[in-house]
Amino acid sequence: MRRRREGGRARQTGPARLPQLPPQRVVNPYPPMEILSADQVETIHLTSMRILEELGIEMMSPRALSIFEAAGAKVDHATMTVRIDRGLVDRALATAPARFTLTPRNPDKQVYFGDNVINFGLVAGPPNVHDRERGRRSGNFADYCDFTRLAQHFNTLHLLGNQVCAPIELPANSRHLDTYRANLTLSDLVYHCSAIGAGRAIDGIRMMAITRGLTLDQMKTDPSVLTIISVNSPRRFDDAMSEGLMAMAEHGQATVITPFTLMGAMAPVSLAGALAQQNAEALAGIVLTQLVNPGAPVIYGAFTSNVDMRSGAPAFGTPENAKANVIGGQFARRYRLPYRSTNGNASNAADAQAVYETEMALWGAVLGHTNLLYHAAGWLEGGLTASFEKLVLDIEMLQHMIEFLKPVPVDDGELAFDAIAGVPTGGHFFGSPHTMGRYETAFYRPLVSNWQNYENWQIGGGKDATERATDIWKRALAEYEEPPMDPAIREELDAYVTTRRQAIGNDEP
Amino acid sequence: MRRRREGGRARQTGPARLPQLPPQRVVNPYPPMEILSADQVETIHLTSMRILEELGIEMMSPRALSIFEAAGAKVDHATMTVRIDRGLVDRALATAPARFTLTPRNPDKQVYFGDNVINFGLVAGPPNVHDRERGRRSGNFADYCDFTRLAQHFNTLHLLGNQVCAPIELPANSRHLDTYRANLTLSDLVYHCSAIGAGRAIDGIRMMAITRGLTLDQMKTDPSVLTIISVNSPRRFDDAMSEGLMAMAEHGQATVITPFTLMGAMAPVSLAGALAQQNAEALAGIVLTQLVNPGAPVIYGAFTSNVDMRSGAPAFGTPENAKANVIGGQFARRYRLPYRSTNGNASNAADAQAVYETEMALWGAVLGHTNLLYHAAGWLEGGLTASFEKLVLDIEMLQHMIEFLKPVPVDDGELAFDAIAGVPTGGHFFGSPHTMGRYETAFYRPLVSNWQNYENWQIGGGKDATERATDIWKRALAEYEEPPMDPAIREELDAYVTTRRQAIGNDEP
Repeated sequence: MRRRREGGRARQTGPARLPQLPPQRVVNPYPPMEILSADQVETIHLTSMRILEELGIEMMSPRALSIFEAAGAKVDHATMTVRIDRGLVDRALATAPARFTLTPRNPDKQVYFGDNVINFGLVAGPPNVHDRERGRRSGNFADYCDFTRLAQHFNTLHLLGNQVCAPIELPANSRHLDTYRANLTLSDLVYHCSAIGAGRAIDGIRMMAITRGLTLDQMKTDPSVLTIISVNSPRRFDDAMSEGLMAMAEHGQATVITPFTLMGAMAPVSLAGALAQQNAEALAGIVLTQLVNPGAPVIYGAFTSNVDMRSGAPAFGTPENAKANVIGGQFARRYRLPYRSTNGNASNAADAQAVYETEMALWGAVLGHTNLLYHAAGWLEGGLTASFEKLVLDIEMLQHMIEFLKPVPVDDGELAFDAIAGVPTGGHFFGSPHTMGRYETAFYRPLVSNWQNYENWQIGGGKDATERATDIWKRALAEYEEPPMDPAIREELDAYVTTRRQAIGNDEP
Repeated sequence: MRRRREGGRARQTGPARLPQLPPQRVVNPYPPMEILSADQVETIHLTSMRILEELGIEMMSPRALSIFEAAGAKVDHATMTVRIDRGLVDRALATAPARFTLTPRNPDKQVYFGDNVINFGLVAGPPNVHDRERGRRSGNFADYCDFTRLAQHFNTLHLLGNQVCAPIELPANSRHLDTYRANLTLSDLVYHCSAIGAGRAIDGIRMMAITRGLTLDQMKTDPSVLTIISVNSPRRFDDAMSEGLMAMAEHGQATVITPFTLMGAMAPVSLAGALAQQNAEALAGIVLTQLVNPGAPVIYGAFTSNVDMRSGAPAFGTPENAKANVIGGQFARRYRLPYRSTNGNASNAADAQAVYETEMALWGAVLGHTNLLYHAAGWLEGGLTASFEKLVLDIEMLQHMIEFLKPVPVDDGELAFDAIAGVPTGGHFFGSPHTMGRYETAFYRPLVSNWQNYENWQIGGGKDATERATDIWKRALAEYEEPPMDPAIREELDAYVTTRRQAIGNDEP
């Protein structure tokens, strides 16, 4: 029984494809949750201003320091510290856009950041990958490509994050060219440019520009890509990240300024303190984007969670992390900026812990009106592993959320008075014309959930949800279809990669 | 490292006990989520009124029909159908209390229903039990007692639901006496009285009265127990349930009127229709409680979910179920009544599916301001199995929610400006005096979550969360302490059971 159209891509013949929701813009139509009072928001904001004005931020890029100095900020060159007053913050916030779009080579996959729209990104950055059949291992290029295919296949994912895993068999200096090319040929989605230095960022922008047939100048006002600027909390932007930030902003591409404020480690052990620091750090990066290029798209990033105070290990999906996800949205709205957060977990297995932690963080992010849920699918082990099974479980959880956020229609047809009148007391609605006319699309059709009775489930192998997820990602890869690309564009892309690889030179992998 | 006081019951010697939150009244301090507009609520309400007035409700108890007739309702004795006009509904809602308390033998375990307080109940009613070591099997009295001990042990559970499993080796006619005695001796919590006929309900009330040293008259205005009235949807109250309802109401004890409105099966396939039917059925039962005893405590129960349209199997924790849990609260507030819902799931294993479904329903219930989360811990397989491992996973999820709902303090100490000033850029807060003074209680300490790094987790056996839950429920049983009971009261209780057992006669089990 087919109960959902599959994004218009259903085949006319062959076996039924995996059920999934069609591509769509996800909107949270309900008001955001407000954990802090307006007074509390303001008190934390004022503490953030004190941090920026009195303590300052270390900017390890001399060029960034010069830019701040030229804008009137107090710079201590010996310690590379910039003190930013609230007037400068306010001026930057006045030019930063409250909403913007990024357009990839397929304009249908454009993503909108702002208001109450939610975008989901593929897991980004783990050194390891895991699946149940091959176990845990260092990521390689084949894994990279498979994850990219899965992100393309599942309509629920709107964009690719930073390298889903590091293809360590490829030369470190040029592997970004390989991964950008994979992003562009295996998917047609918005992607993340590495901002470890300006060079990698600009390669990512140029390669996207080739596939869109645009010049860099055109891309500057019609952006396509984004990057995450991870702050080396507390209060430090390293040289490479600062350079990457400035390169992206200069080219009009989006930056997401994300302080790494793990409470008890890189931030105070208290939520209010960690949030004050998060604000200060995020605002420092946001100011820099606007000094470089007023109006450059920038997103307020939140990553506040706690560590396990017994071991110092990061924890995600904790009650504190869920609260921080809600509150981060309060600050993003205070600053009139799009908001990024994450549905992380710290489990070592794609198990019950991975799921309850992910759900806690996910609900916090959604209730906080996140606009970008980074690492939305596939993240495991506190970000050290990209998991194939977890990706599938995450798609199910994200699809649940999409359906939950759909408004409930109330009209005569939905109220079903006649249907109720037509079924006798103690009877059933299975054969009711009202049911027959609506059952195919009435309910969400799950990807992973098994609702068989116990006996039939046992006969079918008694597979738990994680085992079923293995079958699903393999089937999704089998169903995957590479998005078409004009051969001339592919040639141009390949030529760019060849030229740049030669220019960079191959270091050892 | 001990970071939480354990309800004042920590031992002075011996190994560390399982970490858990102290006993507490759980409050949701945030406004409820509103999925329906006020107009939509009113439209559905008016459809419910049409169902009550035009279609009516089948009441299979002649006594209940007489009571309705005496109150001016239109009764068709041939079909045992009562038509209830909105005036009668309004008069009942005027006498039903918006809030009330139930007090068990230990007054510290009193539970409050109303406003924004949330109470969590043990899973109730499954025929089967499951744990990883003994597998799935029919429930027996030993299992019953173990689940009751676990409910007593975990502070997060506030009350016992209907029989956690049926002790099928005991005679069916008198096993309620055994389970009530187990409830009263192994725990000191509020419990559920069976409402299958008046006799079982009154036994439960009398036995609680013995342990409180109260007369039935005193209990009438100082209630202790509750029951679930499951409506045989659509639009039917069977004879036994009606009699149980009236017995509980007459004795001033709490009833929870819960229509069994599975969309597509016992209710329309559309959410608006199912909710209109849910309202009508719940209100019919609520009216009956108030006709029998104006002011009797009664709770608006919601159980609307959908079925798998391919198999007819019930599904829980779906997006539709989560929405219904939110919206149920909108109707309970419309009627100024406490609100019951459930965090169900339909998984056959205590796995990732069981957890994501439970989280969906749990968040819906909490955002909808549920006052009673029935089946809160231990429910598996759509309610057909009580699971020891799932109970532990649920306690972790409930504790997460309790901590999430705690307001965030914002004051100078929490803002930690001096701590931030005292840590150099790029440094860490591990040794900060601010951290040292707060780390023991700063964060929630998990029951199940494992945050070790992968290597240490592997060395420790690489157990997933469900496997760890096995260790935890066994350890909780080992740590369990029976609450003391005055020997004279125990004797009186035993004498009551003996007398009643003789009066009932032993049928075959």
